[in-house]
Amino acid sequence: MARPGFDLSVYLVTDPLLNGGRPVEDVVDQAVRGGVTMVQLRDPHSPTRELVAIARRLVAALRPHAIPFIVNDRIDVAMICGADGVHIGQNDMDARDARAMMGEDCIIGLSVANEAELKASRDALGAVDYLGVGPVYSTSTKADAGGAIGLEGIAWMRAATDMPLVAIGGIDAARTGDIVRAGAAGVAVVTAIMNAAEPKDAAAEIARAVEAAKQE
Amino acid sequence: MARPGFDLSVYLVTDPLLNGGRPVEDVVDQAVRGGVTMVQLRDPHSPTRELVAIARRLVAALRPHAIPFIVNDRIDVAMICGADGVHIGQNDMDARDARAMMGEDCIIGLSVANEAELKASRDALGAVDYLGVGPVYSTSTKADAGGAIGLEGIAWMRAATDMPLVAIGGIDAARTGDIVRAGAAGVAVVTAIMNAAEPKDAAAEIARAVEAAKQE
Repeated sequence: MARPGFDLSVYLVTDPLLNGGRPVEDVVDQAVRGGVTMVQLRDPHSPTRELVAIARRLVAALRPHAIPFIVNDRIDVAMICGADGVHIGQNDMDARDARAMMGEDCIIGLSVANEAELKASRDALGAVDYLGVGPVYSTSTKADAGGAIGLEGIAWMRAATDMPLVAIGGIDAARTGDIVRAGAAGVAVVTAIMNAAEPKDAAAEIARAVEAAKQE
Repeated sequence: MARPGFDLSVYLVTDPLLNGGRPVEDVVDQAVRGGVTMVQLRDPHSPTRELVAIARRLVAALRPHAIPFIVNDRIDVAMICGADGVHIGQNDMDARDARAMMGEDCIIGLSVANEAELKASRDALGAVDYLGVGPVYSTSTKADAGGAIGLEGIAWMRAATDMPLVAIGGIDAARTGDIVRAGAAGVAVVTAIMNAAEPKDAAAEIARAVEAAKQE
């Protein structure tokens, strides 16, 4: 397997509505310069043609930085733009089907909120590289997210599986330390970076918080 | 190239909301027994996991009949379920990208409403096997469909291109003859079959109308 290494520390999830009118690839480029280690395109509403166009712009923006680029749900978009992987939710394609399509060289993440979802995903976990766990806190950026699982939810998942965990949901720099101490390898953030006046500074602050917590 | 032959005569487009509560694969099976020659899964709202499940049920239902199965927009769903092709709209993936992903053995259809869209699609037409033209009449089943193009729109497109045309939009058996006489190789129908009390009879009536018009 030649699956690329990846670092979940500061995982930026894009949102087309939260970049303050700035081109999403510009915000992402700034954020990467601040310390973002991984980027996911999540945009469940745009037409496919627009998704492909955005994905290609993000691939071009991220290639110089060698930062993994992940597409949410849409394996067709991921494949045609040359993404490094896909992130799938419980209502998206089965991770084994995603692996069959994308091949062994890609990164596959799966959202798992709780014990019930972890059980339901058991047979698919062999096809998965990391778990997205949340929402840790309640969030306005994902209408179909379930109830907040809190730090206890992260700690439970840390005990229940050996897989790398990235936490998501209402996370900002101030909350990052506790989340990493609870067992997450990193934090996935949307608003705290996409909507920041200075995405680079926002990313750097979160990166410092992750690093500090890991060194404790 | 081993692209399969296909017959646009009676092209059934599914709609998850219009099958009167019956399993979509049952309606499709009945319709195929009545004379449907091609089936498209169009369902822009269901989550990917459900789309894949429906697509696999339709593949299983259609395989014994050797009827081509086409998936609208979602190339990932088409690939994982083993569909015979995809149908793409002006806001979906570029047909050349679709061809690159699906390979030479698949059928690719493209929706083209008018001269402007035909011009905009010019560079992609080499990757396309047939054109979907419409809406011929105004329709309630597709919120983003443009204004009705009428029989004149079909005739214009027939004169403008050599590609096989399937007409769509508000078509029933009574309107089928005129549409085929205007130059369409067949008619794509949603409501007239999916919502019929007897999908088999509804399909047979349309099949007879297509055949009669072609023999004039």
